[in-house]
Amino acid sequence: MNWDLLLTNASLATFVGEASHGLITDAAIACQDGQIAWIGSMRDLPAASAASAREVHDLDGALVTPGLIDCHTHLVFGGDRAQEFDLRLNGASYEDIARAGGGIVSTVRATRHASEDELLAQSLPRARALLADGVTTLEIKSGYGLELEAERRMLRVARRIGETLGVHVQTSFLGLHALPPEYKDHRKDYVDLVCNELLPALADEGLVDAVDAFCEGIGFSRAETQRVFEHAQQLGLRVKLHAEQLSDLDGAALVATFDGLSADHLEYLSDSGIQAMARAGTVAVLLPGAFYALRETKLPPVDALRSHGVPIAIATDCNPGTSPLLSLRLAANMACTLFRLTPEEALRAVTVNAARALGLSDRGTLAVGKRADLVAWNARQPAELCYWIGGGLVRHVWLGGVSV
Amino acid sequence: MNWDLLLTNASLATFVGEASHGLITDAAIACQDGQIAWIGSMRDLPAASAASAREVHDLDGALVTPGLIDCHTHLVFGGDRAQEFDLRLNGASYEDIARAGGGIVSTVRATRHASEDELLAQSLPRARALLADGVTTLEIKSGYGLELEAERRMLRVARRIGETLGVHVQTSFLGLHALPPEYKDHRKDYVDLVCNELLPALADEGLVDAVDAFCEGIGFSRAETQRVFEHAQQLGLRVKLHAEQLSDLDGAALVATFDGLSADHLEYLSDSGIQAMARAGTVAVLLPGAFYALRETKLPPVDALRSHGVPIAIATDCNPGTSPLLSLRLAANMACTLFRLTPEEALRAVTVNAARALGLSDRGTLAVGKRADLVAWNARQPAELCYWIGGGLVRHVWLGGVSV
Ligand SMILES: [Zn+2]
Ligand SMILES: [Zn+2]
Repeated sequence: MNWDLLLTNASLATFVGEASHGLITDAAIACQDGQIAWIGSMRDLPAASAASAREVHDLDGALVTPGLIDCHTHLVFGGDRAQEFDLRLNGASYEDIARAGGGIVSTVRATRHASEDELLAQSLPRARALLADGVTTLEIKSGYGLELEAERRMLRVARRIGETLGVHVQTSFLGLHALPPEYKDHRKDYVDLVCNELLPALADEGLVDAVDAFCEGIGFSRAETQRVFEHAQQLGLRVKLHAEQLSDLDGAALVATFDGLSADHLEYLSDSGIQAMARAGTVAVLLPGAFYALRETKLPPVDALRSHGVPIAIATDCNPGTSPLLSLRLAANMACTLFRLTPEEALRAVTVNAARALGLSDRGTLAVGKRADLVAWNARQPAELCYWIGGGLVRHVWLGGVSV
Repeated sequence: MNWDLLLTNASLATFVGEASHGLITDAAIACQDGQIAWIGSMRDLPAASAASAREVHDLDGALVTPGLIDCHTHLVFGGDRAQEFDLRLNGASYEDIARAGGGIVSTVRATRHASEDELLAQSLPRARALLADGVTTLEIKSGYGLELEAERRMLRVARRIGETLGVHVQTSFLGLHALPPEYKDHRKDYVDLVCNELLPALADEGLVDAVDAFCEGIGFSRAETQRVFEHAQQLGLRVKLHAEQLSDLDGAALVATFDGLSADHLEYLSDSGIQAMARAGTVAVLLPGAFYALRETKLPPVDALRSHGVPIAIATDCNPGTSPLLSLRLAANMACTLFRLTPEEALRAVTVNAARALGLSDRGTLAVGKRADLVAWNARQPAELCYWIGGGLVRHVWLGGVSV
């Protein structure tokens, strides 16, 4: 064995098994060729391998977790909506804002008008902020282009963010995000365009890892969602869904029938939806940033998700309108504070369960053979990561065993 | 004129005057001997002075604000309460936690047991986190020592934080924070001790800039608060008060009669309290981090504060029990989101009004003669500072004109 990296005297929150955080104290972890090669107690550390490790860090008791995984973001977009935030707090109604050209159409406009390089330049600082907070894998959705060129540009920028920062980016095609203004009297034509042209073309270019939709009264119907899912299925792509955020359209059950990766938001999720998710193994992705920013009061059914054994993930939902949130650890704090998840549930929700929501089985825990995406924290107890609100707790990040 | 520092092509949120943010776009600001020496439009910039400036930064349109001021923190303490946070979310009651040695007494115990150097080492990262987020002046309270030696240690550590980081630290003596366990059957003796021994001794050592108390059913009564205020007054020290957080004890009116700097928390503030504050010019310090962490639902009377012209400040209340918040900008976002302050109100609340809550007239705005505590942001519009939740928006900080 020739270890590239060895971390000694660490507290490892492995999230393997059911025991508290899968915690191993007085532990060491070694990486080789981008993967975790050894993990265990300091007293079991093989002396010869340790002595020949290329790089060794004594962590003096610091906590190490798997790199965090943000499994639901819209962080590639043009412009921002700070002015709209300001107007709303100064008393403007949603109609006033729509009349002033605000709302999602303003983001669509700014995104369409931005070149690929401009979009990258605007989006990179957001991805950097997530990385600085411990995120090593993130999902990025399209859905502010709503036409072939602009959707392609968004997805290419998502890939370029991964290449630029060395983080892993998983893309979701979200053609059914909003009806573009030019189709407002031709709804079916837009769904046809998404299913028959945008999705196959972008999938063919290797830009689509999964397919998502916004199933909601103000978004797309269950029948429209089903159509795009059928096309995704024919292309061999997994699906996920914005479901039950503002009302119950039974979207969670729909995505479950497609063996969906996740149903996301879920404040209005019904018992039958939970049962369908449990049967299909579909992950519940909770998005407390949007709940907070919208001052939502309807809580997602956390107890019922628990009792049915539905895995819970948490994500930032980073987007310019309803969740301008740039910290996954803060999302975890919000999940504890607002949704009453335990710190352990919240941490599994941004590691192992978030990996599952993206269909990734090679990460999210600390175990031999998993990707060596690691974060060492300025903390000793896992609960501290959820307890502190803000602040820079990251001590060191490794992506595939390589120091960032 | 020999300017030490010149920032050109900036957007300056001066907070001078009533106009929107006191904003000057296409502007420049110059510093000399730690103070702001010139401020105005680029077109009015005196060419000779500009040419001879020692250090020049072209900000390319970036926003500059006064350094932020966190006017209410308890950030010097031993230990943390992450385990208690964890226990509570796992269903433990407050009684369970008290029986397990938790609550404020656990922080008192950890603080008393820490040496001055240990306390400094534990507290510095919290102050650094605030600074990294744009804070250049912060207040730090005592109140976890509750005996002469430990209160002195806390206040000395507060001063050392200022010296170590170059930030300005304003101290408040908070002897009447909690009844120490050893006085539980001798309440009056403890108040005597605070008034007759602790306060005069610590004031004599130059460790006390102001005097604070926790006036609440679970804290100290109005009469006890009045006693310590009278002693403060005799020593020529200004007062401030934790008032009306959980109930209305008419503390705001009390602190106003002492010409108090501020009344803080204020969820249960009455109309008569507001009127007394307005008459005295006492600042209302709102602490949305504690409101959020405690899942409080009673909102502070923001409309009535506005209509009576009471200046509003916002602070982190950084403390281990009810507000482990390490970002003042996040407190400003919470004030907008939860309390419906406008972004401009929230930004004045962490600059000019926060300075007033500390009795400091030399900072909090951008004007000639004020301290050259400046922050350049990765933002162009002031509202962005309140809009983004988390993320690293600070581009550059100057303390007294010196780059950090
Ligand atoms: Zn979303
Ligand atoms: Zn306080």
